[in-house]
Amino acid sequence: MKAGRRGTDPSSTTRAAWIVIAVLAAFGFQEAPGQNGSRPVDGPASRASAHAEDIAARYGGVAQRIITTAILRNEGWEKLQELCDGIGHRLSGSPALERAVAWSVETMKKSGLENVRAEKVMVPCWVRGEELVELVEPRSARLPALALGGSVGTGPDALVAPVVAVRSFDELDQLGEAGVKGKIVVFNVPYDGYGKTVQFRSNGPSRAAKHGAVGALVRSAGPSGLRTPHTGALRYADDAPKIPAAAISSEDAAMLGRLAGKGEPVKVSMKLGCESRPDAESANVVGELLGATNPDEIVLVGGHLDSWDVGQGAQDDGGGVVTSLEAVAHLKRLGLRPRRTIRVVFFTNEENGLRGAHAYRERHLAELGKHVLAIETDGGLEKPIGFGFQEKPARDADPTPRYRAAAEKLRGVVGLLASIGADSLSAGGGGADIDPMRKDGVFVASIETVGTRYFEWHHTEADTIDKIDPTSFNLHVAALAVVLYVVADLPERL
Amino acid sequence: MKAGRRGTDPSSTTRAAWIVIAVLAAFGFQEAPGQNGSRPVDGPASRASAHAEDIAARYGGVAQRIITTAILRNEGWEKLQELCDGIGHRLSGSPALERAVAWSVETMKKSGLENVRAEKVMVPCWVRGEELVELVEPRSARLPALALGGSVGTGPDALVAPVVAVRSFDELDQLGEAGVKGKIVVFNVPYDGYGKTVQFRSNGPSRAAKHGAVGALVRSAGPSGLRTPHTGALRYADDAPKIPAAAISSEDAAMLGRLAGKGEPVKVSMKLGCESRPDAESANVVGELLGATNPDEIVLVGGHLDSWDVGQGAQDDGGGVVTSLEAVAHLKRLGLRPRRTIRVVFFTNEENGLRGAHAYRERHLAELGKHVLAIETDGGLEKPIGFGFQEKPARDADPTPRYRAAAEKLRGVVGLLASIGADSLSAGGGGADIDPMRKDGVFVASIETVGTRYFEWHHTEADTIDKIDPTSFNLHVAALAVVLYVVADLPERL
Repeated sequence: MKAGRRGTDPSSTTRAAWIVIAVLAAFGFQEAPGQNGSRPVDGPASRASAHAEDIAARYGGVAQRIITTAILRNEGWEKLQELCDGIGHRLSGSPALERAVAWSVETMKKSGLENVRAEKVMVPCWVRGEELVELVEPRSARLPALALGGSVGTGPDALVAPVVAVRSFDELDQLGEAGVKGKIVVFNVPYDGYGKTVQFRSNGPSRAAKHGAVGALVRSAGPSGLRTPHTGALRYADDAPKIPAAAISSEDAAMLGRLAGKGEPVKVSMKLGCESRPDAESANVVGELLGATNPDEIVLVGGHLDSWDVGQGAQDDGGGVVTSLEAVAHLKRLGLRPRRTIRVVFFTNEENGLRGAHAYRERHLAELGKHVLAIETDGGLEKPIGFGFQEKPARDADPTPRYRAAAEKLRGVVGLLASIGADSLSAGGGGADIDPMRKDGVFVASIETVGTRYFEWHHTEADTIDKIDPTSFNLHVAALAVVLYVVADLPERL
Repeated sequence: MKAGRRGTDPSSTTRAAWIVIAVLAAFGFQEAPGQNGSRPVDGPASRASAHAEDIAARYGGVAQRIITTAILRNEGWEKLQELCDGIGHRLSGSPALERAVAWSVETMKKSGLENVRAEKVMVPCWVRGEELVELVEPRSARLPALALGGSVGTGPDALVAPVVAVRSFDELDQLGEAGVKGKIVVFNVPYDGYGKTVQFRSNGPSRAAKHGAVGALVRSAGPSGLRTPHTGALRYADDAPKIPAAAISSEDAAMLGRLAGKGEPVKVSMKLGCESRPDAESANVVGELLGATNPDEIVLVGGHLDSWDVGQGAQDDGGGVVTSLEAVAHLKRLGLRPRRTIRVVFFTNEENGLRGAHAYRERHLAELGKHVLAIETDGGLEKPIGFGFQEKPARDADPTPRYRAAAEKLRGVVGLLASIGADSLSAGGGGADIDPMRKDGVFVASIETVGTRYFEWHHTEADTIDKIDPTSFNLHVAALAVVLYVVADLPERL
């Protein structure tokens, strides 16, 4: 017997539910739980399944009601369209982000959330300006490029220098000053997963500068696209000159590698108008569904409102904030008020500073002990497969019984999502916005997706709303609403 | 028994052939002929198979030798890299195209071709210049765009006007002057195959101008990409003002459609620096492998050397010209000289004028009767599946016995490619460069591919060499070399 179905009251199965089942079938969902191959959180299977049976018995019916009523709605999608089409991308310090803050306050209020407020945060202001990267030898050609966030500019004159291409930090170090000084270093490192490849974007410019490089071009951290550069933040080291740096497409990085590999002179011109300006005022936006009996205990959900200054910040992370909000709006619509408070947070400045994440932690330090769980929604809106749970307070720590017990309960909760194939609980969730409170002992988790194409769009001009499937959007809302409701309503806190 | 294998002499099966078979197996090729679902050319099956048996008996061994020795080579790929990386895109009238002409002459000579020459052709010179298309209401956002080839510019001041979006010519005509005058018309027509969708790019601007539009933005003729505009030629009508026109991405066309659909004001700014300049000198480049006994009879193969001024013109059509050349270079390398002459032609100005195509026909009018077959290589270098044969001299004509007989023989020849899965003969081949000589009775054909992704890259910045698989490149060389050799060597002409 499937856990997620046990508590379903057949008499409450409405016509809408049958439509939903047809939709889900058409969308290709498996109904069997635990089939999606993610790594399960450790825990004794028998105790876990006892939890699952308790939770299914208690919450199976309401979970199915939440799911079936979420799946054919349009309100959330319309909000996402307002944010993406109406406001567009919104980097920290931009007028667009402040329009988005105002829109968020208004939209949370309209959606029936309580205690809606903007909590002021000062954020960095880095501005892109005009940019032009060109091959000038052996021929003239424009190379589509995006300056890396935080990069210094080149000044009004273009930086023109010979190119040296490397495929690793080892190769760079072997070339040393003799091979690198006065040159533009091209990091032509093929994409091998974001976590592995992003180091060349983050640290490459300073690593090159230490050997005397005057500029850096980084092969975009993402699968090969359509000559598509991916921006993202760099991190200048304190002990190296700050040199201008931009991302170029995988195609052009490979081409520069081929041309330089022939031993003939290859020269590139970089003109980056980017600059850092004084900090600007922004805000985390917060709204709540107050708990019925334990309003001081908080289940937090949220992503980040800011985005890079390209595309529409749709997958990263407009979809995350809007589904967080919509999940709670949906509970409100159904008249479901759990024991504890559900708090929605739209964090600011995730992309280039994490000021919102740190400001939230500092401002709410006194009540972090009352944070039952924090869920990050920052992995895009492809088909959800379940949740990730961070089973320890720090990277080097071991899971404690407290974490194990929470994981077991959470597995029971997530099991309620078997009918939409989102019932996996994998180890290692969380997110940048909620990571600061993790070391204070707050349990952190994240909604997880199939993750098939996310990094094709991530930090590019192509991160636009059309990449999001409206059905998948509603499944995120449904999955979040079920988990938020049940975790906030369990007789004993996680 | 498979036709393509009958004539294979087991004693000539070299070690290389076994490597090839392993490579082909890894590449996923089917060995059974006629399995790829293309529409076969009409013709009595029994006669056709009699032809096939004759041809297989006579040419099966040499065909396998051509294929197995073509498949692991690198010379052709290096030539393609010289053209794509070393010269890059090459629009008519550009210095790059003239560098490409010089390179082609030199490379044909180096490859051992005979009678190599550049046949002068005057070509149009349209220059893109700076371009910037921006949404200015309800918010400010840059819209990636490419002016359509042949478009007039906007002058130094941007054209700023309200937007009206349509999804068909009917909708445009229904709006009429009242709805269109003074506006920028956005043709937001989703891609439904190139042949069907390209009319909005070709004719949309003038259709809009007739109703008083001041500018046109066309949703790119291609599948949705990564916010990728596709350029291409427009055709101004004589009876409408010439208005500036550009292609925008499918994402932005859809967004403008959504925004305009809300009934709120939507305004766009277009600044296009493009202009037409006086005609420039270019050339068709021609080289031959002279026939051993009938040198005045010609089997022609070729594509176009020019490209749009984006990407590298790799699939369109650098790959086509280089595989044409390499097929003949490969025969030369193997010491295979057929009865008739094989002529390689790199046509100029296919993309925006077809001057090369018409110039070839006019210059060679007297010998067109001796053109046994002309094969166009302008469909990209995805995995080849066979050839297309144009079985009638004009669209409205019926196939005559002469065309039927040629198709039957050609089916036998193409059957020699069963081992690489390229043995389909479909109806309706040819190409723009050789179409003018079709009405003079020259048989025209084309090499055909799976065509899975071609229109994602076509006329975009993403048409770069990395989109071509080197194994697929060599399969094109092999398929062309076999068909060219056998058609040029058959005892009786096609």
